[in-house]
Amino acid sequence: MLRSRLLQIAPALALGLSLQGYAAPTVQVLNSNLTQAEVVAAQKGWCDALLKISAAYASGGFSKAKATAEAVIDQAYAYQYGPVAFKPTLASGSQTFRPTRAGALAYFVGGNPAFPSDKGFALKPWRSCEVINQVIQLNGSYATTMGNVRFVDSSGKTTTVDKTWSFMKEPDGSIRIVLHHSSLPFEG
Amino acid sequence: MLRSRLLQIAPALALGLSLQGYAAPTVQVLNSNLTQAEVVAAQKGWCDALLKISAAYASGGFSKAKATAEAVIDQAYAYQYGPVAFKPTLASGSQTFRPTRAGALAYFVGGNPAFPSDKGFALKPWRSCEVINQVIQLNGSYATTMGNVRFVDSSGKTTTVDKTWSFMKEPDGSIRIVLHHSSLPFEG
Amino acid sequence: MLRSRLLQIAPALALGLSLQGYAAPTVQVLNSNLTQAEVVAAQKGWCDALLKISAAYASGGFSKAKATAEAVIDQAYAYQYGPVAFKPTLASGSQTFRPTRAGALAYFVGGNPAFPSDKGFALKPWRSCEVINQVIQLNGSYATTMGNVRFVDSSGKTTTVDKTWSFMKEPDGSIRIVLHHSSLPFEG
Amino acid sequence: MLRSRLLQIAPALALGLSLQGYAAPTVQVLNSNLTQAEVVAAQKGWCDALLKISAAYASGGFSKAKATAEAVIDQAYAYQYGPVAFKPTLASGSQTFRPTRAGALAYFVGGNPAFPSDKGFALKPWRSCEVINQVIQLNGSYATTMGNVRFVDSSGKTTTVDKTWSFMKEPDGSIRIVLHHSSLPFEG
Repeated sequence: MLRSRLLQIAPALALGLSLQGYAAPTVQVLNSNLTQAEVVAAQKGWCDALLKISAAYASGGFSKAKATAEAVIDQAYAYQYGPVAFKPTLASGSQTFRPTRAGALAYFVGGNPAFPSDKGFALKPWRSCEVINQVIQLNGSYATTMGNVRFVDSSGKTTTVDKTWSFMKEPDGSIRIVLHHSSLPFEG
Repeated sequence: MLRSRLLQIAPALALGLSLQGYAAPTVQVLNSNLTQAEVVAAQKGWCDALLKISAAYASGGFSKAKATAEAVIDQAYAYQYGPVAFKPTLASGSQTFRPTRAGALAYFVGGNPAFPSDKGFALKPWRSCEVINQVIQLNGSYATTMGNVRFVDSSGKTTTVDKTWSFMKEPDGSIRIVLHHSSLPFEG
Repeated sequence: MLRSRLLQIAPALALGLSLQGYAAPTVQVLNSNLTQAEVVAAQKGWCDALLKISAAYASGGFSKAKATAEAVIDQAYAYQYGPVAFKPTLASGSQTFRPTRAGALAYFVGGNPAFPSDKGFALKPWRSCEVINQVIQLNGSYATTMGNVRFVDSSGKTTTVDKTWSFMKEPDGSIRIVLHHSSLPFEG
Repeated sequence: MLRSRLLQIAPALALGLSLQGYAAPTVQVLNSNLTQAEVVAAQKGWCDALLKISAAYASGGFSKAKATAEAVIDQAYAYQYGPVAFKPTLASGSQTFRPTRAGALAYFVGGNPAFPSDKGFALKPWRSCEVINQVIQLNGSYATTMGNVRFVDSSGKTTTVDKTWSFMKEPDGSIRIVLHHSSLPFEG
């Protein structure tokens, strides 16, 4: 998707003789900035993807869930470019952080002996996923969000997490997660 | 000027029981991006400043023009942070580039023996200054413009230059020129 | 502090007649990027500031701790520019997020009736504070770190948290926290 | 090409009992910044590409030169993402600016009736191309250079231009020109 946009700028008022006959050009704009609307759409995309993996597991078992999760990770996270700063909600100990694709995949669908504590967060029977933003920071092709995500499962039980994401927009318009810190609420 | 803006986001539709009574928060946004409108305003500010130096020279001579130019440079260029990439229209030879404040000041008002060819571009009896943009590139707190600037002097004579600027926006909202390449049109 | 650096570039080999007598210029560099070393120093600065507030409380009580914390927040966080994305370790409920300076101050030193659960994290008798980074992402004048911070108090008890920071560097070289997500480790 | 780098950080001194047995992790770094060395290499790549088009014309005529130029433009400029801010040295009038790929191609090899003044700058018998930088500005995945480029042709004649480039680095490490303002030196 090209981000080039042609914007017609109103001709300047040509008051003086020197500008007679002057036709204002069309200004061409190349905008690399990630907008708030794009960020909100990317968050919704993450929720939709989680529900999709969950549904894949219900309909096709582990192998279908895993294939779905692999496609989601490759599209929504930036692992192909280097370490993603990913701290999933339920990871702990020496495997708290998941800077590699393998670690992310294990967290979402489990089944990897190298990550024995992972049960597959996305395999749960999730029914809804909602993002409630508190702070959004827009910084060029990067943007950060902080707030809550509320998951509801098939029994109606709600799980709420505190979540920070940073997204980056590539020149071709692709948007990927480079930072993801999720944590259970502190019970004071 | 703070760039924080409070945006009221419409509450998400609360369809499930689990969200009953939920009040959507106000999302707070920190936006460091330089907008097209800010860039166009900064360009107009440059033109206005040039006319102001010219008028200062007419009304108060060299010393008033110089003081005005110093204030303009300190506010509109980024010399306090390091070398500005400045290639003025009429500079040449070993003094083609003006990465220092002293070189910029000499170009605008002359009178510096270290820059003997400088006659003071801003001292001419300019009456109007107009920017005609061809390309604008928005990249976070930086933006680049390329196009023409048309100057008209007191005799009605028009001078047109090809001009590229890059602006940066600081966290406090100040906008400064970090790149300025100006050249006379090629006469093919 | 200016970030301008003068780098002497070795003269290109002047092989042809056309370049005879040519003296290579000194390249001037304006570098707005935040380096890994600067990020690590900023993290250490945060730890040192925490210990300083703690020591201020021990030596001068609440008022001295509060004054110290105010100075720290104004210097180390970006609240003057808008909402900081701050999720402290021990905040919860509707006060989980602290996008304002008042909320940050209350978290560090307590004593604000508007934040009744805050006991003052920085008032504890901290003796050491150590950052263990897992991922560092460098992106121009912004950088993100993810890893652990280990605090040891006067009784020798260690508290470890999962922590994400994003820092920004201003044109004058100041480095400030724009994102801070801290959470207790998940106990699986 | 991945830009991820694994950096071994020296273990922190483990002085207290609480850190006994602690093994410092390997910090993983994702660095999106464009370095000065990469910029200088990209400039050299531009010069080499110009000489390559020139040589292609000498050995294979217009069609070979055009094919070479197309490949160069697609690899070295960012036209696939939107308007490039390109003001070639010898373009004038309503075709001074070349925000489209077609305009860039016409400038380098001519032969396009829509750009009747273009003679094909790259078709000249260039023998050397040298960049002399005056200012380099590094700003995350973007960098700007300003200085001179000196071309020598088969007769030994030197042409010097004042040139500004901005480059961007994509997440996959590709480096492309987004801004190119070239002008003949002012003859004062």
